[in-house]
Amino acid sequence: MAFILTFLGKGGTGRTTIAIAAAKKFANLGQRVLLVGQDPTPAFGLLLGTFPRADPTEVEPNLKAVQLQSTLLLERSWDEVKKLEAEYLRSPTLKNVYGQELGILPGMDSALALNAIREYDASGEYDVIIYDGSGDQATLRMLGMPEILSWYFRRFRQIFTESDLGKAISPFIQPVTSAILNVTWTPDDFANKPTQQTSQMLEQGKTAVADPNRVAAYLVTTGDTAALATAKYFWGSAQQVNLTVGGVLLNQIPATDTLAADFAPLTVSALPQLSQVADWQPLMDALPDFKQAMQAPKAITIDVANRQVSLFLPGFDKKQVKLTQYGPEVTIEAGDQRRNIWLPPQLSGQAVKGAKFQDQRLIISF
Amino acid sequence: MAFILTFLGKGGTGRTTIAIAAAKKFANLGQRVLLVGQDPTPAFGLLLGTFPRADPTEVEPNLKAVQLQSTLLLERSWDEVKKLEAEYLRSPTLKNVYGQELGILPGMDSALALNAIREYDASGEYDVIIYDGSGDQATLRMLGMPEILSWYFRRFRQIFTESDLGKAISPFIQPVTSAILNVTWTPDDFANKPTQQTSQMLEQGKTAVADPNRVAAYLVTTGDTAALATAKYFWGSAQQVNLTVGGVLLNQIPATDTLAADFAPLTVSALPQLSQVADWQPLMDALPDFKQAMQAPKAITIDVANRQVSLFLPGFDKKQVKLTQYGPEVTIEAGDQRRNIWLPPQLSGQAVKGAKFQDQRLIISF
Repeated sequence: MAFILTFLGKGGTGRTTIAIAAAKKFANLGQRVLLVGQDPTPAFGLLLGTFPRADPTEVEPNLKAVQLQSTLLLERSWDEVKKLEAEYLRSPTLKNVYGQELGILPGMDSALALNAIREYDASGEYDVIIYDGSGDQATLRMLGMPEILSWYFRRFRQIFTESDLGKAISPFIQPVTSAILNVTWTPDDFANKPTQQTSQMLEQGKTAVADPNRVAAYLVTTGDTAALATAKYFWGSAQQVNLTVGGVLLNQIPATDTLAADFAPLTVSALPQLSQVADWQPLMDALPDFKQAMQAPKAITIDVANRQVSLFLPGFDKKQVKLTQYGPEVTIEAGDQRRNIWLPPQLSGQAVKGAKFQDQRLIISF
Repeated sequence: MAFILTFLGKGGTGRTTIAIAAAKKFANLGQRVLLVGQDPTPAFGLLLGTFPRADPTEVEPNLKAVQLQSTLLLERSWDEVKKLEAEYLRSPTLKNVYGQELGILPGMDSALALNAIREYDASGEYDVIIYDGSGDQATLRMLGMPEILSWYFRRFRQIFTESDLGKAISPFIQPVTSAILNVTWTPDDFANKPTQQTSQMLEQGKTAVADPNRVAAYLVTTGDTAALATAKYFWGSAQQVNLTVGGVLLNQIPATDTLAADFAPLTVSALPQLSQVADWQPLMDALPDFKQAMQAPKAITIDVANRQVSLFLPGFDKKQVKLTQYGPEVTIEAGDQRRNIWLPPQLSGQAVKGAKFQDQRLIISF
């Protein structure tokens, strides 16, 4: 299992350059590193000094790089879907649709990238995977996908089973499935079988994102007001997907006391400018120990004994955070994200008794 | 119907600043302008000088601004879905799921933004809508959505109808639908009814994106090598979604002959630096007439008489463009995008006889 590292910040603050320097640093320390670029433009290759392919290729000792290509990843995923269909369906039909025809819809890039990272991680070939994504809300949506998708499955499976539509379809499931499937399914199988493997994968994804030993993000900013505000915003937003932010990297500005206070309790590191002759060493030397993410505050702490849930939401004030309990779970809205908090059985389904915002935290009592 | 304008380019090249200046310029000319910001961070408001709300609000005469909020847009769309369900379903079940619980998955931001722009356009309240999106591949995926989604519908409806699954389900459609629906559907209705309205909307979207009178993009770049390469890449990529690129805006670099040649036949405009005191006038004055997009090359030209299709693909070379004919349509792959070319009846279903790459164009003969 690899340590997966990514960088968040406004465009143009030097995220890609820092991602490359971090990859080189880990590789120099003897770690087996994979640098994953999401940006399909030539910018990634120009900064790296070589144009990576759509499959991992060594660019220097211990360091492989890959530039994700959604069209290719979709082709491969489609082949997997067709295999799965052929396993279940007596006469597969998707075989008549070719991966090479499929266009890319919004969201596919993120889903395919997350799946690619999962596979690179599972391969056991890497100690560190550095993901150079868009570094903005899209990266957070991607990392939040396992948790949010699990919620959709959980919620809508129940709704479907209890619905008139579900009940009306129920008696037909057996005749239909026995007519077309290699196996016979009961209505229960129908609701569970095809989603079982997916659910397992989503659970693993959720656990990984929540663990700073497995996944961490660092903020990147210049001294520009908009860049600083963006970094702060992503710090809070990252918590909404349970992603640990390990520290702040200041691109070509000194680490003042004001900045340190703004981002406390995180460590703030000042980075030098990359020289034109591409001597990466000074930048590599200035990077912090990324494993310090383990000391950063956790996004969520659940205290069953005191019936309290504490959410770390830095950068937001009380008015920017909304707590609701419409559905069966507690929903937190902040940073244009919604998080449904899965609670342990002792607190699950209980009404919220009170909530206060204190020391960058939303504390909910049950 | 409004003129919809957006900007493409590497992060940090000044796209948002230019979008604001363009909005102010149109407003000064007496046009009713809506500036739509996709970025959820405070950066948009900081640059604009005021923090826009989640619904259009006037920021100066003739100029309204909105900062899209996906959580809110999803709530509203969910209400629409529930209304539609209530219309068809005898006992609606989705009413038990609240919009306020729904998390945002990758791709939803784009789909919701496109729908919001469609509604703002249809309202008749605006002459110009300026969309300040991520300005990268994600913006292209969003604008490509109507065409690509139509393709998926077209292709998979046929596959489903001809499949064993489709045939096995067919006899059950009438009993199931009559049990749960307010109306009785035949299998044909089942395949067409719920998608009819969507298909119409997608067709309208496709037509709008393809028309430079309705939708146009401008490239933004600084003198940085990576920024220039990115602008060039998006120029070609935009053609893959049938989006017209009207010109190039050079942020704080002079318009040299080399640059003009690089982007020929587009017009290249040099823009001054925005002063710290936020005097927008010099920047507004330096902006080109955005309607010149109508003179820019069209993404696709179909010559039925000569049985030729010409695709404008600047910035790519022959090796970067792939032409295949796996499915029933001709597929073009370039810029990590896939486009299935819908051909007029005279050429549809015919085998490609030849293809050549010449003067930035892929010319296909049938």
